[in-house]
Parts: sequence; C-alpha cells; structure tokens
Amino acid sequence: MEHNLGNTIALLTRTPAAFNALLRDLPETWTLRNEGGNTWTAFDVVGHLIHGERTDWMPRAKLILQFGETRAFEPFDRLAQERESQGKSLDELLHEFARLRSENLDELCALNLRQEDLERRGRHPALGVVTLSQLLATWAAHDLTHLHQVSRMMYRQYCEAVGPWSAYLGVLHCAGHSSLR
Amino acid sequence: MEHNLGNTIALLTRTPAAFNALLRDLPETWTLRNEGGNTWTAFDVVGHLIHGERTDWMPRAKLILQFGETRAFEPFDRLAQERESQGKSLDELLHEFARLRSENLDELCALNLRQEDLERRGRHPALGVVTLSQLLATWAAHDLTHLHQVSRMMYRQYCEAVGPWSAYLGVLHCAGHSSLR
Repeated sequence: MEHNLGNTIALLTRTPAAFNALLRDLPETWTLRNEGGNTWTAFDVVGHLIHGERTDWMPRAKLILQFGETRAFEPFDRLAQERESQGKSLDELLHEFARLRSENLDELCALNLRQEDLERRGRHPALGVVTLSQLLATWAAHDLTHLHQVSRMMYRQYCEAVGPWSAYLGVLHCAGHSSLR
Repeated sequence: MEHNLGNTIALLTRTPAAFNALLRDLPETWTLRNEGGNTWTAFDVVGHLIHGERTDWMPRAKLILQFGETRAFEPFDRLAQERESQGKSLDELLHEFARLRSENLDELCALNLRQEDLERRGRHPALGVVTLSQLLATWAAHDLTHLHQVSRMMYRQYCEAVGPWSAYLGVLHCAGHSSLR
C-alpha cells in the first residue's frame, strides 16, 4: 500500500507496548540468548531501537525539513547499543524505548506535516536521495523487521525442544537479518 | 535450550498481550491485508490461535496423559478460523484468545506436571510418536512462529513505501510460512 502517515503513526504508537508485553520479566533464557556467532539477543534489539529513537528517525526528519538534499544524514551506528545498554536491565531499556518513542511521536505530530512535506527529499550517506515519506515508512517497517527478528531468535531457542514438529514451523526457514543503516 | 516448563508458561502467558498491544484498534490496512494469494491476514492468524486453544494444545496434552500412544490426536483444522471468525471483529478475537489462553494455562498449572509426566508419549496422526514435553514446547514456539508471520505480513504492506531502504530490511528475505498441523 501507499505510505499513509496516519497508519505509520498508529503502528509506531503500538510497537513499544508490544515489545514490552512480550519481553518484560521474561526469563533470561529467552531474552539474553542469540542465534549464534555475533547475532543479537532481544536485549540487543531493544537497545538498538532506543539508539534509533535518539539519533536516527526524528533527527533525520528534521534534517530533511531544514536542509533538504544539501546535507547528508549522519551514518547510523548499528553497534551503539553495545556501549549504551551496559549496566542496564531489559526492563529499563523497555521503559526508555517507550518514553523516547512517545516523545518523538509528540514531536512528529507537532510538525503538522502536509502531503507536500512528505515529498521533500534528503540525502542518505549510502542510499542517495530519499524522501521524508520513505524515511517515516522505514521507521515503522524497522519496528516490524525487529519484531520479526526477535520472534525468530526466541523461536530458535526451542528448535530442538519441539522435536518432530520442527517440520511444520515455518520460522525455521527464515534466514533474513536486518542490517538497517 | 532444553525444554523448561516454567519458560514455556512464561512465554504462553505473554503472547496474547503482545498480539493485543500490536493489533488492537490498528487501522485495517495493517490487519486485513495478506501477503497475496490465499495467505493469511493478522485477523486470520488470531482466529487460528483461538482454534488452537480450543482444540489443539490442552486437548492433546490430556489425551497423552489419559491414553498415551494408544489414541492418535485429532488432526488440527488449519482453516477452521474461516468459519469461526465470521462476523467477529479483531478486537473480539483478541479478547477471546486472551481469555482462552488464560483458562488453558490455569488448567495446565493445575495438572502439576512432573518431569516424568513430560516424558510421556502420545501419537500425532502424521508425525508419529511425540512427547508431552515436545507438545508443550510447540505450543510456545507456535505463538512465536505466528508473531514472526504477522510482523512479516505487516512489513510487506510497506515494502514499496520504504523506497531504497528495502535493501537493508532483512524481513523481506523471509519466505517461511508456518503450516502447523
């Protein structure tokens, strides 16, 4: 479907509560295990979502509105959560994510964006020209890609425990990994 | 990891609230669109989860405890929600799923299962011999595979709207489809 700002905001409003409902106070065997190698845990993902709230979505939206294509976005640090989440609990991160998202959505709504604003163009350091509409759609899609990732990584903790049923569980066939920059 | 009943119950307790937080009152463009062809919508998935609560998990667990391998499970009807969800709203389905899950978990806890109970064996009509432990692990994994599916199907509604960012969003590369029976 076409990008619709109301639909994007409706989704962005809900995903912090969905992560919270799924992960808060869940045993650490679900939340602190990854998919092997240097893949992420649910704890890492929530830290990554927090970093996006701080440095990616709204800062880039404001850069587009202020400077258009004349200033490229700051590259997004996909590993920032390794520093920034240190010493914090998952519950603290979930709370921080919800608070920052709420503040960012307040700020987004206060911009009173019109259709012509959504068509304004900015410059991504690797992807080139992008529109404000594409940036905001990606904000929502990025939540979904990480919910997709978390449900897969949690599932994989049980891929042996389910025994013969593994033949029927489609999530096992997902090799997708988000690498949003 | 090994199957741990406490971890399974912790997850089963949370997933209805996670689906509710994500989907309740969300615009229908997110919840009533599928991935093309005869694939499912989020509405279909919640109906399917309800049917599992009614006819799959606890009925099969009790069959194992009562009859062991001597009676095969009833085959699971993967299309039952097409009849059973008719005329209902997604909000009604989300409420029904949460209520049934809560009742089933009360019943599961009342069984006071010991380790030797978890090793008891039953008979799946297609997969053959399975254990109670595998059945209960699959109950939890099944929630995760459908959360995985819903986040992918929702993401796909925006696969054009994100423009050049689609190159970075791993969910696009997921071709997995659950077909639990």
